[in-house]
Amino acid sequence: MDKTLLYQAVCKKIQEMIGKGTFRQGERIPSIRVLSREMKISPNTVMAAYAQLENMGLIEARPQSGFYVKPQALSHGIKRSGGLLRENLKPKQVVLEDTTLQVMNTISNQMLLPLGIGMPNPDKLPIEKLTRMLASESKRFGIQSISYADVQGIPRLRTQIAKRSFLAGCSLGADDIIITSGCIEAITLALQCVCRQGDTIAIGTPVHPAFLKFIQWMGLKILEIPSCPAEGINLDVLSYTIKQNHVSACIVIANFNNPLGSLMPEEKKQELVSLLERNNIPLIEDDIYGDLAFGKARPNALKAYEQKGLVLHCSSFSKTLAPGYRVGWIAPGKFMQKLMQRKSLSNIATASPTQLAIAEFLVNGGYDSYLRKVRRTYAKQIDSVIEVIGLYFPGGTIASRPRGGYNLWVELPEGYDTYKLYEIALQNGISIAPGMIFTLKKNFRHCFRINASYWSNRVEHGVEFLGKAVKDCKV
Amino acid sequence: MDKTLLYQAVCKKIQEMIGKGTFRQGERIPSIRVLSREMKISPNTVMAAYAQLENMGLIEARPQSGFYVKPQALSHGIKRSGGLLRENLKPKQVVLEDTTLQVMNTISNQMLLPLGIGMPNPDKLPIEKLTRMLASESKRFGIQSISYADVQGIPRLRTQIAKRSFLAGCSLGADDIIITSGCIEAITLALQCVCRQGDTIAIGTPVHPAFLKFIQWMGLKILEIPSCPAEGINLDVLSYTIKQNHVSACIVIANFNNPLGSLMPEEKKQELVSLLERNNIPLIEDDIYGDLAFGKARPNALKAYEQKGLVLHCSSFSKTLAPGYRVGWIAPGKFMQKLMQRKSLSNIATASPTQLAIAEFLVNGGYDSYLRKVRRTYAKQIDSVIEVIGLYFPGGTIASRPRGGYNLWVELPEGYDTYKLYEIALQNGISIAPGMIFTLKKNFRHCFRINASYWSNRVEHGVEFLGKAVKDCKV
Repeated sequence: MDKTLLYQAVCKKIQEMIGKGTFRQGERIPSIRVLSREMKISPNTVMAAYAQLENMGLIEARPQSGFYVKPQALSHGIKRSGGLLRENLKPKQVVLEDTTLQVMNTISNQMLLPLGIGMPNPDKLPIEKLTRMLASESKRFGIQSISYADVQGIPRLRTQIAKRSFLAGCSLGADDIIITSGCIEAITLALQCVCRQGDTIAIGTPVHPAFLKFIQWMGLKILEIPSCPAEGINLDVLSYTIKQNHVSACIVIANFNNPLGSLMPEEKKQELVSLLERNNIPLIEDDIYGDLAFGKARPNALKAYEQKGLVLHCSSFSKTLAPGYRVGWIAPGKFMQKLMQRKSLSNIATASPTQLAIAEFLVNGGYDSYLRKVRRTYAKQIDSVIEVIGLYFPGGTIASRPRGGYNLWVELPEGYDTYKLYEIALQNGISIAPGMIFTLKKNFRHCFRINASYWSNRVEHGVEFLGKAVKDCKV
Repeated sequence: MDKTLLYQAVCKKIQEMIGKGTFRQGERIPSIRVLSREMKISPNTVMAAYAQLENMGLIEARPQSGFYVKPQALSHGIKRSGGLLRENLKPKQVVLEDTTLQVMNTISNQMLLPLGIGMPNPDKLPIEKLTRMLASESKRFGIQSISYADVQGIPRLRTQIAKRSFLAGCSLGADDIIITSGCIEAITLALQCVCRQGDTIAIGTPVHPAFLKFIQWMGLKILEIPSCPAEGINLDVLSYTIKQNHVSACIVIANFNNPLGSLMPEEKKQELVSLLERNNIPLIEDDIYGDLAFGKARPNALKAYEQKGLVLHCSSFSKTLAPGYRVGWIAPGKFMQKLMQRKSLSNIATASPTQLAIAEFLVNGGYDSYLRKVRRTYAKQIDSVIEVIGLYFPGGTIASRPRGGYNLWVELPEGYDTYKLYEIALQNGISIAPGMIFTLKKNFRHCFRINASYWSNRVEHGVEFLGKAVKDCKV
């Protein structure tokens, strides 16, 4: 039987038993050993299934004791982070330590086995077709291909993006969209349109390192809102926090969060958007992994739930088609005019030829069937990486089980330090992203992010090596 | 005899006579009518030559009286602007009026006869060759062409730019350069690296409108330093001003200034750089028109004169090869690390395929012979536009005579308002850039910028129409 199906079988079984009240809140569920024997499947498969149930917030591991049904509440993130709540009341000036900056820079070193960066595996990208389309479209559009594009971007591309927004629950028109040079440009322009130096922003933690750097650059203060690997940002904490502080904007990656891999349930998305709208706080949404959903339907964007034009929806084709083409977009709602002005002052417009090529790919390149293929690949690779983690990492290690994208979040048992693991990995030609680069606090020192877009013997051995090296990483 | 030679003959003759003391300071020189008759050349040619002499600061026109030898001093800009000096002591918050912003936006409307924008004529660009190279290089570099480029840019391109820096009197290495998405990105990133909100910058006036907009965006204060159409920014005023104020940076377009068309003499460039270095003020140089010099040698960049790494040299291929490829660069001197960080946060890196295509054009595309051709074209077109101005604009109108680029600066006699001219032009499908968009003050209301990169019957009739419309533009 296929391993994925086995996971699912285990998960379903336990879920049903909890649902029926066979196991109640706080009760112990069967140990891995017992279930493995009874269901005649490997302990690793059970362990992976339990990890997923834990990520879903259904069960929890208790040291030296086993797995228990978890009290059902939104308080997950708060409880877990202990005294975090009080600390969150104070906006913090972002000052990244030199070590942190150095780690951020090192992990993208292209000589290393690239498990530390959030980049798609180039071997999975449709290089030949895109290259052909770049050539044919530049020829076809002649003068237009070497002239400045509209500040807003080439209309044909905007129309395609607008059409696809339907799949994310939106109903954008071409005029609602500005093409940007990648998603990070969309986000940094958005921040510059809604915040000024000294302002405070709220953001789910662990935080994408590029956001931390830019927030530091702008001289903003930050409120890190705890998030869980299953459902993302904790709305109770967020709600409490924005009551206590003047928050100028909120940044959220709802779909396949980087680094957590979390996916916000749709009702939580709606709740998030209306919470911020009630408080008149602009919401900067990073939806760059949305198209890489493993399930049948693409999850909605936060933008789908807005009523007041306060969601600045940012995305790009960098994770799906061509990072180097630098083609992303923003649908900035009521901030359209300001964004247009800011974009024109940044670089007048995004390069024309790559816009033309991607527009053509969306029209005639079979983007959807390509997406189906690549999603299957990433889903399989994530399983493979989790399996190797299950085999070689110490007991108590928990890997998130994202339902899209390719970023895995791994938590070692407390007492291990992933900065040490990062250093050992580095000395052995492997890049991982240690938890320290995702926060200004100390709470992710035992975590790291791993990129599962690559899979090969070398990767398998790399992950095995990491698992075995953990024993030397005690605090 | 060729018209250009005739101009030169007139200019040389008058210059010699002033040099020998035949005409002394304050003395009247022969009227246009007299010289035209004596030298057997058309009055228009003499008028154009006198305009050039005036731009060089050698003679001046006095209403209803004729042309006089001008007192020789650097005080040109100061005297001319009347009480400007005292006013310049106060840094000014940039707040652009709605009308000004509206004009800035309207002049790039592509349905208009494009005399108001600083864009190269696409018909003069090497479209076919570039398109071929874009296709072949993307194919040749495969994975590299769709992957993120280094933050700093593709090394092959940087090497070519470094090699060419020799022609501008510099000795850059590939590692001294960061590729940007056009020159405006280079400049705005530079500003963000050397200034903070509330800081004051000094800048030659008339000011490129995009700079004004970005300075307003950043919340900077501005000191407009008078400049003349012959030699550019006035160093006496600049020197005086930086003594009186804390200036955080200075922006200068030394070569073929936009909008003036002025070219700073090399010794003035040296003087400028050492003045700022003595005061430890970063100098942001925009050298985008440098490669379009009509003379035999390309003028030096300001960067050529630096001793302390304080010059942030910005340029791009947008005026020479392909605006829509968005490939520019910055050589930021001692600000390299800061600039790299800021660039990576803007958009990670500039698009790869267009970088590859331009690198190939520089290596194998015959860039220099292409430049020679296009320079000849622009030089000729500038003559043509000036000639039509001479024929149809009211007496006392002065056009600058740039020795590179394609931007002409036209001064109507005082008492005319080019905003009115802009409005009449607009109603008749013509775009011009009225003086008001180049300053926060009132001193260029009788001036406008005209783009001479286009030349056709339509352009000729357009300029003729403008000349005839001036009579309806009295203040």
